[in-house]
Amino acid sequence: MAELTLTTFDWVPPPPRGYVRDIRVRWALEEAGLPYRVKSVPFKARNAEHFMHQPFGQVPWLTDGDISIFESGAILLHLGGLSDALMPADPQGRSETVEWLFAALNSVEMASLPWSLFMFSGDTGDTPGWKRFDAFLKARLQHLEPVLAGREWLVGTFSAADILMSDVLRLVDRFDGLAGYPACRDYVARATARPSFVKAYADQMAHFAAADGATSAPKADSREIGR
Amino acid sequence: MAELTLTTFDWVPPPPRGYVRDIRVRWALEEAGLPYRVKSVPFKARNAEHFMHQPFGQVPWLTDGDISIFESGAILLHLGGLSDALMPADPQGRSETVEWLFAALNSVEMASLPWSLFMFSGDTGDTPGWKRFDAFLKARLQHLEPVLAGREWLVGTFSAADILMSDVLRLVDRFDGLAGYPACRDYVARATARPSFVKAYADQMAHFAAADGATSAPKADSREIGR
Repeated sequence: MAELTLTTFDWVPPPPRGYVRDIRVRWALEEAGLPYRVKSVPFKARNAEHFMHQPFGQVPWLTDGDISIFESGAILLHLGGLSDALMPADPQGRSETVEWLFAALNSVEMASLPWSLFMFSGDTGDTPGWKRFDAFLKARLQHLEPVLAGREWLVGTFSAADILMSDVLRLVDRFDGLAGYPACRDYVARATARPSFVKAYADQMAHFAAADGATSAPKADSREIGR
Repeated sequence: MAELTLTTFDWVPPPPRGYVRDIRVRWALEEAGLPYRVKSVPFKARNAEHFMHQPFGQVPWLTDGDISIFESGAILLHLGGLSDALMPADPQGRSETVEWLFAALNSVEMASLPWSLFMFSGDTGDTPGWKRFDAFLKARLQHLEPVLAGREWLVGTFSAADILMSDVLRLVDRFDGLAGYPACRDYVARATARPSFVKAYADQMAHFAAADGATSAPKADSREIGR
């Protein structure tokens, strides 16, 4: 098998740490038990090679031999083809995994990401904009709640769809947006208790913390400051 | 081959007509030359069977024999497996189609849909919310523009990724949001000039117009009114 390499930023500011999308790929690779290495590209000065792999200047991307793939959804689908731990082998199970994987990104995250941007900015006053997106997210969660109340994982067994859906909901949970949706909240707790998530999260945090050390060293410039 | 059935609403209000997501599936089916039939479910009274097929109460969904699939992205990926007209046969081409298909939905539509909701509501005054989402969309278009300036279609040849990307951009174009992005605008014009899009669009418009006739007839209740 060709070597799998995940590329992410060398550093990001503290607020998004633990939520950078490379965590979805790390988590999937850990669940599948596939060996991989992690490479970094500059967060601050994105170069032509970066845009060649990821046209929007974002992360992550994955290389598998000659193939380079961006978009966390596309990467997880690719990894699902390499491991039954991420996608059931039967056609019905595969089809359901794929539809829920898209549902996580295009039905739920489509509503939750705008909502989170309002939350991140503290722009949650009495404006039509905020009310529209708060209602949009609630419309989705209201329908997801009975689905998750009735099953442990989206497709019978844990799959790539659960990685994406729980990671999408995790950002909502960060701002306490799942308070009225106990099945969604329990699902996030269940997913993030998995050893593969715990390791992926710790690895992402350590990756960015290491960069702090690397940049703070030259910045400090005096042993008195920055202990 | 099992019969393909696309399910959409029986009726929608005029504003979203021509933009309901069943058009993505109609378009793909026409490109692939696959025979299909269209079924309707009530827009106003969504029932349990509807939620069984589409847990968020949206449309479309597609049945292929025993398999029922929701999410336009998942449906197009499924149809790509049935026809090379939607997805190149070689692994590299397939992989690129899949990543661009996700990019359309999760990088571009993630920004364009919130932007369009502001536009639909006429809520484009000098608020932090509007400015944030206007900047978010522009950040995406700014990177998509050089990509589309350099190629006719996203993956060498026309594919399912172009159906999704051009449909996503079409809604931005409706509100003149592509004015500063000529390559994006030309791409939408190129895609929507294809006979398969023209037919899919006309079929969706006719489908909803037929429902207007059907509901206005019993409503009229007198031959003098409603000619």
